[in-house]
Amino acid sequence: MSSGKHYAKGSPKPVLPDDGQLRLFSMRFCPYAHRAHLVLKAKKVPHHTVYINLSEKPEWLVDVSPLLKVPALQLSAEKGQPSLIESLIIAEYLDEKYPQNPLLPKDPLKKAQEKILLERFSGVSSAFYKIFLQSSGLDDFSLALDIFEQELAKRGTPFFGGDKPGYVDYMIWPWLERLPLVEFALKDYKFDAKRFAKIAKLIELLKADDVVKSFYVTPEQHIEFWKSRRAGNANYDLLA
Amino acid sequence: MSSGKHYAKGSPKPVLPDDGQLRLFSMRFCPYAHRAHLVLKAKKVPHHTVYINLSEKPEWLVDVSPLLKVPALQLSAEKGQPSLIESLIIAEYLDEKYPQNPLLPKDPLKKAQEKILLERFSGVSSAFYKIFLQSSGLDDFSLALDIFEQELAKRGTPFFGGDKPGYVDYMIWPWLERLPLVEFALKDYKFDAKRFAKIAKLIELLKADDVVKSFYVTPEQHIEFWKSRRAGNANYDLLA
Repeated sequence: MSSGKHYAKGSPKPVLPDDGQLRLFSMRFCPYAHRAHLVLKAKKVPHHTVYINLSEKPEWLVDVSPLLKVPALQLSAEKGQPSLIESLIIAEYLDEKYPQNPLLPKDPLKKAQEKILLERFSGVSSAFYKIFLQSSGLDDFSLALDIFEQELAKRGTPFFGGDKPGYVDYMIWPWLERLPLVEFALKDYKFDAKRFAKIAKLIELLKADDVVKSFYVTPEQHIEFWKSRRAGNANYDLLA
Repeated sequence: MSSGKHYAKGSPKPVLPDDGQLRLFSMRFCPYAHRAHLVLKAKKVPHHTVYINLSEKPEWLVDVSPLLKVPALQLSAEKGQPSLIESLIIAEYLDEKYPQNPLLPKDPLKKAQEKILLERFSGVSSAFYKIFLQSSGLDDFSLALDIFEQELAKRGTPFFGGDKPGYVDYMIWPWLERLPLVEFALKDYKFDAKRFAKIAKLIELLKADDVVKSFYVTPEQHIEFWKSRRAGNANYDLLA
């Protein structure tokens, strides 16, 4: 429903059909928005996407996302057309609201354990940005990723979700897809496919997953976007 | 089940009855652990409490809380006696597992909205510590609290949960109970009961709530604990 172009300051508000479909306000290269896209695809929920230029936000963004955050999911069929923010809250909402292809376990204990595991991924994502912005933090990054390597070994399944991708797989994928950025930021670094053998295999499996494929960005494209962003001129419309 | 004394390095591991009851590892003055106590009380779930000296943690803490965090809730009746951490994950687990006195709405949208609101409380809790540790951040604190004042006005109910305390009420209470610490840290500051009229009323109502009363600490006691903590000699057993 979107051309993929990002709406910026001064852009008129897009007129979306009054069809009651969900409306996802996103940025094509945002890993948090990426999560929402993956869940919507996994659950096959029809929706419209509106991409937002985060450097020069359109004036009307405040109407759908008062904190000017993406992802924001507007529920256009609900009374007052409320919006949800926070990628994990959006993911859990979608998983509860649309029962097809459940991502989180229904059992309260198992569900809590998946969320606690995911909580630890913040070690990876925060180290990730430190690496990219300051070229430091590789040790923290690797130690945090070890946790996921060990957990996958312990589970003995190809995916965190078992025989197919589940909640944790899709919630961490945006950073796994962006691993080449770490190699790009730290010239001497090469992803250690031996230390992270299970994660390396998971990455290959997820790359072949239809949901992941439907929103996939190549390493070269990620690098090109980040270069433009680092130069202070983020090329949001790189893929549009 | 606990005398209220905090177990420290060198303390033998307490022997708890093999009765399948939940075991909460806590610290008497930790606002995050406070949340878990409130939910357990609200849902009337029988449990044992083991208090931990966080300055000198007992060696066996790692067995029940590998990251050495409190609160940790050990599910002694479950296979492998797993533990849960993270106060909000513990709260949601308990709310799902024990249906009595539900705290979060069942409707996925309403539930997501409560969680998004609570997410914004991190503005209060992080400003809180900045005030206490650096005597700065009062403006951020007040602006974050404004959000809750406005939301309560918008809802038009005495509690965030409606006519009785709900999820948001109990999750923010630990910081509301500690508001006198802000006045203590900033000598010139006085909580503005006009600007925060609804919150002031909420505080009075919650002080009279049986659940809150069951774990209540007076302003003087909070101040005494924080003084001892700031002096590098936290008096964990102040109430024991």
